[in-house]
Amino acid sequence: MARIHNFNAGPAALPLTVLERAQAEMLDFDGSGMSILEHSHRGAVYDAVHNEAIAGLRQLCGISDDYHVLLLQGGASLQFAMIPMNLLPSGRSADYVVTGAWSKKALAEAKRIGTARAAADVHADGVCNRLPSQDELELDPDAAYVHVTSNNTIFGTQWHQWPDCGDVPMVVDMSSDLMWRPMQVDRFGLIYAGAQKNIGPSGLAIVIVRKSLVDGAREDIPNVLRYAIHADKNSLYHTPNSFAVYMVRNVTQQLLANGGLSTVEASNRQKAELLYGAIDGDFYRSPVEASCRSTMNVVFNLPTAELEQKFVVEATAAGLNGLKGHRSVGGIRASIYNAVGTDAVEALVSFMADFRQGAG
Amino acid sequence: MARIHNFNAGPAALPLTVLERAQAEMLDFDGSGMSILEHSHRGAVYDAVHNEAIAGLRQLCGISDDYHVLLLQGGASLQFAMIPMNLLPSGRSADYVVTGAWSKKALAEAKRIGTARAAADVHADGVCNRLPSQDELELDPDAAYVHVTSNNTIFGTQWHQWPDCGDVPMVVDMSSDLMWRPMQVDRFGLIYAGAQKNIGPSGLAIVIVRKSLVDGAREDIPNVLRYAIHADKNSLYHTPNSFAVYMVRNVTQQLLANGGLSTVEASNRQKAELLYGAIDGDFYRSPVEASCRSTMNVVFNLPTAELEQKFVVEATAAGLNGLKGHRSVGGIRASIYNAVGTDAVEALVSFMADFRQGAG
Repeated sequence: MARIHNFNAGPAALPLTVLERAQAEMLDFDGSGMSILEHSHRGAVYDAVHNEAIAGLRQLCGISDDYHVLLLQGGASLQFAMIPMNLLPSGRSADYVVTGAWSKKALAEAKRIGTARAAADVHADGVCNRLPSQDELELDPDAAYVHVTSNNTIFGTQWHQWPDCGDVPMVVDMSSDLMWRPMQVDRFGLIYAGAQKNIGPSGLAIVIVRKSLVDGAREDIPNVLRYAIHADKNSLYHTPNSFAVYMVRNVTQQLLANGGLSTVEASNRQKAELLYGAIDGDFYRSPVEASCRSTMNVVFNLPTAELEQKFVVEATAAGLNGLKGHRSVGGIRASIYNAVGTDAVEALVSFMADFRQGAG
Repeated sequence: MARIHNFNAGPAALPLTVLERAQAEMLDFDGSGMSILEHSHRGAVYDAVHNEAIAGLRQLCGISDDYHVLLLQGGASLQFAMIPMNLLPSGRSADYVVTGAWSKKALAEAKRIGTARAAADVHADGVCNRLPSQDELELDPDAAYVHVTSNNTIFGTQWHQWPDCGDVPMVVDMSSDLMWRPMQVDRFGLIYAGAQKNIGPSGLAIVIVRKSLVDGAREDIPNVLRYAIHADKNSLYHTPNSFAVYMVRNVTQQLLANGGLSTVEASNRQKAELLYGAIDGDFYRSPVEASCRSTMNVVFNLPTAELEQKFVVEATAAGLNGLKGHRSVGGIRASIYNAVGTDAVEALVSFMADFRQGAG
């Protein structure tokens, strides 16, 4: 078995020890005589796993009792709809800070449910290589919430300082950077993330929502899309994605055993520094404004599209996988989420030096 | 590793060979150097798996090109909402044949979206131990569709002869018996199922829908809940539950290699016959009308609730797991889905004989 370096944007690398644990337990979970995949979601064995996943998230992210932690299906895309259904009453409006493809999609979906507007849009010629300054935000002080995407996987930008939204609750899509560093949950109204970057497999969304916010849902929405019902049933209103929950439990336990999110942050900063250091501004160029470069998705260009293609082909052959930029923008993208090791980044940086020399 | 006999109602037993394959490939799928859990859903490796899952379902179930096969998140519960959103235009009504807890929930959810009514309700004193006769169905010939639950996991009933719904499309929840025998897809408008009984892990719904039906969706529904969009994107509109899709692919491949659904049906009929044969009508009694007893969920009672409790405890100790009846009805329930072997049913029947002797 030769594991390769995985720079996929998501689904993405998982910690090797977590995969090994899943492998070891695949036929017989914890001496129960069956796989976790075969356990009833109403049984004591799964129930313990489910609650350990939630407890792990609470401990790791410092989530107080003022918040529900929900484990839902449908990924972030379903949250684009559930958020306005639950948090945007008829007669009110929501603000969306548009900084890329995902926030644009979130806004479009919200407009199908209620009244929502762009409080800023930093698209220029189809790309978003920067984040808006505080001055550029046209915030409605009466908005039901302000929606922000914390990290933009496609364009490689990330908020390093949160915008000031006054008293309006901030709703943040952290799909691609939840748990990249210690969190300050209390400053947000709702945090959500598809699990498949930093947290676990696809098919699961984590929703962390202030308890006081879930009772304002629209009347006419289906039960299965109502936060209050999922909260009331501890995310067991219907059959959960039990395998993904099991994996999230294992990831959180692994991170806690390794020192928690401070350790994770130190490692992520080191990896990002290493990689951005190799983007010399000459042969390798970053299209992203320096102040908002992502620590999760490092986007860069080579002098020509032909060289970029050659780079991806040769990197793949060298065991460096998933480096092709998003189809909408091209270029190179290295996603260096929590589970991507420093060794992988070192291998990439070394490959970059060699490739440049070969092309020179 | 001692695997035990698993009679869970769902999530339920999976074929051992499918679990072993997942285990063997957990760290390195098909020589790709990474787990299937870590593959991008936009990459060639996952794409092949995804299409093989759909092709496997098409071949196994005999699904023609007149139908879309969709792999969606949210299980059957989200379908309770998506079906009326997509198939029940404003100004029309849908009929629901209420035969248990799930059809009741489906109807309640539909009423939140549009106009829906019970075309029959066989609840008596809170239980549904039979299915309605054709005469009992008050069908609206102008209904947008008739919704039927093919197998009722809680009460242990199953339609062995479909109701005649005239020209109105039948929408069938086959969550607990999809693929229990060869299918006649062409007689249905839409078939749906949560995967976690006969088909794979939880967190996935299979939707088989006649292509001509998906264009009548309501205008104001979110994109993520629109069948036409998922169909247009081959169920890759957003990140799928990729592990569950991989498992469904493996289950379908295993069933095809073993002779397809005719073989499955023969085995299921044999298991059901064996088990119902042990329900002697004296010590073990079936509460379900003989004509509509389920081949998937065999529900029975013992003379007293105390004996039933003792039965479950002793069966569990003997390695027969998941036999406790649903909390809403009590009694005993043995779910004998496709992946539950004849050996498991034989072990249960043998235990039943011993238990009766011990109690006599």
